Amino acid sequence: MDYTIGDAFLSETLGTALLLLLGAGVVANVILPKTKGFGGGWLLINFGWGLGVFAGVYAAYKSGAHLNPAVTIGIWASGADEFAKGIPVTAANGFLYVTAQMLGAAIGAGLAFLAYKKHFDQDADPAVKLGVFSTGPELRSYGWNFVTEVLATFVLVFIVLAFGKTPAELGPLAVALLVVGIGASLGGPTGYAINPARDLGPRIAHALLPIKGKGSSDWAYAWVPIAGPLVGGILAGLLARVYIV
Amino acid sequence: MDYTIGDAFLSETLGTALLLLLGAGVVANVILPKTKGFGGGWLLINFGWGLGVFAGVYAAYKSGAHLNPAVTIGIWASGADEFAKGIPVTAANGFLYVTAQMLGAAIGAGLAFLAYKKHFDQDADPAVKLGVFSTGPELRSYGWNFVTEVLATFVLVFIVLAFGKTPAELGPLAVALLVVGIGASLGGPTGYAINPARDLGPRIAHALLPIKGKGSSDWAYAWVPIAGPLVGGILAGLLARVYIV
Amino acid sequence: MDYTIGDAFLSETLGTALLLLLGAGVVANVILPKTKGFGGGWLLINFGWGLGVFAGVYAAYKSGAHLNPAVTIGIWASGADEFAKGIPVTAANGFLYVTAQMLGAAIGAGLAFLAYKKHFDQDADPAVKLGVFSTGPELRSYGWNFVTEVLATFVLVFIVLAFGKTPAELGPLAVALLVVGIGASLGGPTGYAINPARDLGPRIAHALLPIKGKGSSDWAYAWVPIAGPLVGGILAGLLARVYIV
Amino acid sequence: MDYTIGDAFLSETLGTALLLLLGAGVVANVILPKTKGFGGGWLLINFGWGLGVFAGVYAAYKSGAHLNPAVTIGIWASGADEFAKGIPVTAANGFLYVTAQMLGAAIGAGLAFLAYKKHFDQDADPAVKLGVFSTGPELRSYGWNFVTEVLATFVLVFIVLAFGKTPAELGPLAVALLVVGIGASLGGPTGYAINPARDLGPRIAHALLPIKGKGSSDWAYAWVPIAGPLVGGILAGLLARVYIV
Repeated sequence: MDYTIGDAFLSETLGTALLLLLGAGVVANVILPKTKGFGGGWLLINFGWGLGVFAGVYAAYKSGAHLNPAVTIGIWASGADEFAKGIPVTAANGFLYVTAQMLGAAIGAGLAFLAYKKHFDQDADPAVKLGVFSTGPELRSYGWNFVTEVLATFVLVFIVLAFGKTPAELGPLAVALLVVGIGASLGGPTGYAINPARDLGPRIAHALLPIKGKGSSDWAYAWVPIAGPLVGGILAGLLARVYIV
Repeated sequence: MDYTIGDAFLSETLGTALLLLLGAGVVANVILPKTKGFGGGWLLINFGWGLGVFAGVYAAYKSGAHLNPAVTIGIWASGADEFAKGIPVTAANGFLYVTAQMLGAAIGAGLAFLAYKKHFDQDADPAVKLGVFSTGPELRSYGWNFVTEVLATFVLVFIVLAFGKTPAELGPLAVALLVVGIGASLGGPTGYAINPARDLGPRIAHALLPIKGKGSSDWAYAWVPIAGPLVGGILAGLLARVYIV
Repeated sequence: MDYTIGDAFLSETLGTALLLLLGAGVVANVILPKTKGFGGGWLLINFGWGLGVFAGVYAAYKSGAHLNPAVTIGIWASGADEFAKGIPVTAANGFLYVTAQMLGAAIGAGLAFLAYKKHFDQDADPAVKLGVFSTGPELRSYGWNFVTEVLATFVLVFIVLAFGKTPAELGPLAVALLVVGIGASLGGPTGYAINPARDLGPRIAHALLPIKGKGSSDWAYAWVPIAGPLVGGILAGLLARVYIV
Repeated sequence: MDYTIGDAFLSETLGTALLLLLGAGVVANVILPKTKGFGGGWLLINFGWGLGVFAGVYAAYKSGAHLNPAVTIGIWASGADEFAKGIPVTAANGFLYVTAQMLGAAIGAGLAFLAYKKHFDQDADPAVKLGVFSTGPELRSYGWNFVTEVLATFVLVFIVLAFGKTPAELGPLAVALLVVGIGASLGGPTGYAINPARDLGPRIAHALLPIKGKGSSDWAYAWVPIAGPLVGGILAGLLARVYIV
């Protein structure tokens, strides 16, 4: 069945909201005070994000489940005709996809805030509270942080574009596991945004929401998890254009 | 092959018993004294519950493997015609599903108690012993605990209702992984009941069983993991009714 | 393609050897001194055993990949006609299956000993060295340890017998994950033998091999991981006979 | 569709580069200073490598995704006609496969170095920095380390050769999980090279790259993760030749 761009807009919004509800949720569980998962480790965070993608992809079946502007721009760079079945690659459609992703990401982060409201009310370093919403580097170096985000997103988008060439019946599990792996392997320096909407939407939510004891939204870093993933996605699309045949 | 409502009753009872045997079992393994998994962490608990669902769904193939009143009520709210192939959505059938789930959950928790009998006989905080049976919040706030359970169960039921729209051959693994992810991401505040039978059945078992050094069954909290999941399931069913087409 | 009972004998031997090579291997990695996985936790052990089953099932494709006398006896108790395609259920064939499983398990444990030879040469509690080969309870109580093994094996064999009723294309991953889950949830008291060959074959290997600083093979406990799994497997087969239709 | 040996060369290079980018990446994340995954444990490392294989196999769909000289030599030893569809088993093609794997592994390790550049710039034991690139034993014993690598690679290559005999639709997940399991179970003594290219290519990269505070590339050990995997692969191929029918 083909869906309209209006269906796709809702689909991307809903899917990205679920991605962030689970993704921001697992970070809250691991780093906020007095949760059951406190200090649960990096692999727990990786599975939370990966399975957030898993849920989001099932929800976003009307739009091809991009959930990520880097995927949308990568599909465009790959020379594909459609963003999803029946939805042509046009600037207007791309704009609507990205808008929906941003909106959904902000909503999802807000829902995760509600799920962990009493834990946000506890005393904690403001940087920890921001860390539930948006990524930040362990060693701040805009150039190298950018490189890390380019590489990690390149892997994500290139493999997503290659999925169709290898038979399997994993459905959304394939991209979920890919995200687990990218997080495990390349998330160490920056926390793997690998998705501009996943980072910017929640950063805006952080700025707007009445979070007890919150601090800076760290806007100085905000361009890295936007530009890095977009460049990585474009590079992946361009390589796919010549390699994936 | 179609099964009768009598088959379905046994199927739900058996499946939910296996879910609780493994689910309560993994909690016992992580929190009771002198087990091999003591202190094994939140991801271990998440996998134990997720794979408890995995086993339970295989066992409950005659009833569509709801194993959860929130799923049963969500299917009803979605406007579906049948709870499983050949079993129409009626109040009587819904009542039998929920009764079977409650019964199975109590039996499964009792079996987990037998599996860990010598560990229950050790000295431990009565709240720890209750924690094997039923959920409890880290920060008690009935309103916010309710919100968390609504959100987590919404994700579960909505994605279960959306499974059929995306091709995959994961069988019971899809819902198992979904439960791993919901636990990782949204289990931090309340321990993710996301299933009224999973919580109430074992709470009754806790009250009745001769557990050495047991304390309160914490009935003051018992309504939260009933009402939250039911509301989450209904909301998921209503959204599915308009979105999943 | 049908295979002969001779093919099946080799298949069970090879598959069970691989199961034990990986299963005993992961225990060695977690509990022997100076390994890279030392102290790696219970979930690591669960994945090692589960993926040992995964490898063993792929290898043992000529015999239906029982790898476990409890599965073989459970199939017999279920009233099935064949142990694998073309191999009828007879006492002689059952005897050959179990003999192959015992032989393979002893060989596999011996290979794991070779893989970790330098680590076995380190000083360690003799009980730790035995723990790589065979299971032992955390709280010794032959009766309750038996109950735990019955319950855990019942889950394994019953779900294996139910696999065919639910469509999925997981192949050997289904039973691998089931073993991960049983270990996570019910392995806490006894270390989940859930397989007489997995325990007795390596216990014999432990008694025979020239392991530096080894102690008792704990024969007093050896009947529990034999009798418990056999009873659990028979009960699962009997329930399958009436339920799985 | 059939691909040329030139396509296969690029495919092996790209796939092995992705394998090492994620594989070296996860080690960097766990052992280099000030990463988000520091001290994340052995299972995290196992998943990073396994999912590195997952990504690499999707990328290398034009060459049958060997990514490993031990697989290439094992296919040769098994008596197969083709390395991939349309690419006959010849010495020249085998040489090109192995060259591409070495090249890709060096490139991938170099990219992981870039992703973690600021962390390599921190003070750390030179052996830790080498550990991101190449394997090293916990207890140095060339003979026993060789035995461990033979056994672990035998499991890998034999099961890969057996995959086709058991129906499943796991695609690249099957080999990914196999690598998780081999790492969990047999990686403890040597860090499981199980792939000469995975070890030698990055060791050369380590020798050539301007890594701050780097030490020896430990060439004395370098033959073990070459010879062990090759012998393991050949043994697996020979057993497959007689067993897998």
